[in-house]
Amino acid sequence: MFQDNLYEAIKKKQNPTVLGLDPKIDYVPKSIISKTKSDVEAIEIFNRSLIDGLSDLIPAVKCQSAYYEQLGPDGALLLQKTMAYAKENGMLVILDCKRNDIGSTADAYANAYLTDDFYIADAITVNGYLGSDGIKPFLSACKEYGKGIYILVKTSNPSSGELQDLRLESGQRVYEKMAELVENWGSGLIGKYGFSSVGAVVGATYPEQLIELRKTMSHTPFLVPGYGAQGGKAKDVAKSFNKQGNGAIINSSRGLMCAYKKHQLLHEEFIKAARIEATQMKQALNQYITWEEL
Amino acid sequence: MFQDNLYEAIKKKQNPTVLGLDPKIDYVPKSIISKTKSDVEAIEIFNRSLIDGLSDLIPAVKCQSAYYEQLGPDGALLLQKTMAYAKENGMLVILDCKRNDIGSTADAYANAYLTDDFYIADAITVNGYLGSDGIKPFLSACKEYGKGIYILVKTSNPSSGELQDLRLESGQRVYEKMAELVENWGSGLIGKYGFSSVGAVVGATYPEQLIELRKTMSHTPFLVPGYGAQGGKAKDVAKSFNKQGNGAIINSSRGLMCAYKKHQLLHEEFIKAARIEATQMKQALNQYITWEEL
Repeated sequence: MFQDNLYEAIKKKQNPTVLGLDPKIDYVPKSIISKTKSDVEAIEIFNRSLIDGLSDLIPAVKCQSAYYEQLGPDGALLLQKTMAYAKENGMLVILDCKRNDIGSTADAYANAYLTDDFYIADAITVNGYLGSDGIKPFLSACKEYGKGIYILVKTSNPSSGELQDLRLESGQRVYEKMAELVENWGSGLIGKYGFSSVGAVVGATYPEQLIELRKTMSHTPFLVPGYGAQGGKAKDVAKSFNKQGNGAIINSSRGLMCAYKKHQLLHEEFIKAARIEATQMKQALNQYITWEEL
Repeated sequence: MFQDNLYEAIKKKQNPTVLGLDPKIDYVPKSIISKTKSDVEAIEIFNRSLIDGLSDLIPAVKCQSAYYEQLGPDGALLLQKTMAYAKENGMLVILDCKRNDIGSTADAYANAYLTDDFYIADAITVNGYLGSDGIKPFLSACKEYGKGIYILVKTSNPSSGELQDLRLESGQRVYEKMAELVENWGSGLIGKYGFSSVGAVVGATYPEQLIELRKTMSHTPFLVPGYGAQGGKAKDVAKSFNKQGNGAIINSSRGLMCAYKKHQLLHEEFIKAARIEATQMKQALNQYITWEEL
């Protein structure tokens, strides 16, 4: 099961970080740009270099589909190659594509990303606005192929509250209702470490909601964006883990990809910079985890 | 502006139908399968034949992205070719991809589908769960490139009410709040016929909600799925139009693509069957429209 595999990989590297590969061409160091002929080629080399340079430290990658889609059909090929390369290097692969549709169309998305036919993903992100009809096809695929999904619950952006924070007649907020639906959808996919392969996306930028959701979503693992560049800190996400270090994976994209800019290192030293940043992030998160045996 | 172009195309053909190109390989007639070497090739010919055979009757196509994505990177190329071919044949192109993300990632999706860089779309579908941060980048692209978006409000599936129908403390239901947000997001993009290039997806399977939303969303055009195979009828969608026949476009996918199965015609007569079905649908919708001059 996806979540068991993910936790074992996290525990082995004692690091619940996921490397976000959201390749904007502006992020790619000049040392790569100068040697390549196209954006697609430059990004491919940048992605491979980051995977080569960080796979001993970080257990998983998260590819943000939008940045590949904006490169057209060649971007689809680049995405396929990047995902396969991460997998070959022992990393788990999450595709952040926030797909959502109903019935046979949701089936088609599950076919696209959860079957290993073309794109090798361990899990994808999904938007639950359409209700169960839009989720069940993904649940079936998770069961059949040992995959996972993360459903948007409380997103990291400033305006996420416009809809998600509204209070329902029942007293729950919209995101709390979504959380309840997600916990139920995942109840048939709980693995040996107590967490389901149906997770929730919960932003690091809302630490109070994250703490509250950890209590109510006892079997739901979190994918947490918003760390670093968006303002989330280690103490903000600390409560998403249990003592065994299970319960969440924290994404950093810009923070790692563009570390060479922050540390004012030479462009060709982008891996050195990313390793400094990844090590600091690992240490910061490890303040809150004891990796106790179950 | 997208909605002005769409209405002019609808009026010219006196037909507010959009041809849904959701190509499952099971839909493709044997007469094509037997002459082609791969699913991608078979679907490409099927799509082109449907566009050739229906573009005099129907003003627009809607490509459902999932069915292309499940074919891998070759599917991305197939999508690109299908969209371009529909455009070359004078049809408007809607990409049904229900994309959603925030800030620079939503920007990347807008780059992917609203700039004509690779994929030639006039409009795409979007999911608004993330609030304004997830919509504004699309609004900017609509303004800059004369494009449109349709945001999910009340979807056609049986479980759409699990979240969308919940009543808020304010008295509004969740979909009514989304409708209010959509009407506001679209207020800067209203064209010369009174409708915005920011539309709403409203299912034909919920005629009461459709009537209610037409009243509250006075400037918002509807993209209406759920006609035909999902159970929606012409009288169910009648109220989404004004007397000029503006206000909505009604999608039919299976109904047209698989018409040859329904009419028990030979596989090679799939265009004949699709034209019978398209003409019946056009006539059924025209009972409720007078095409009055403005």
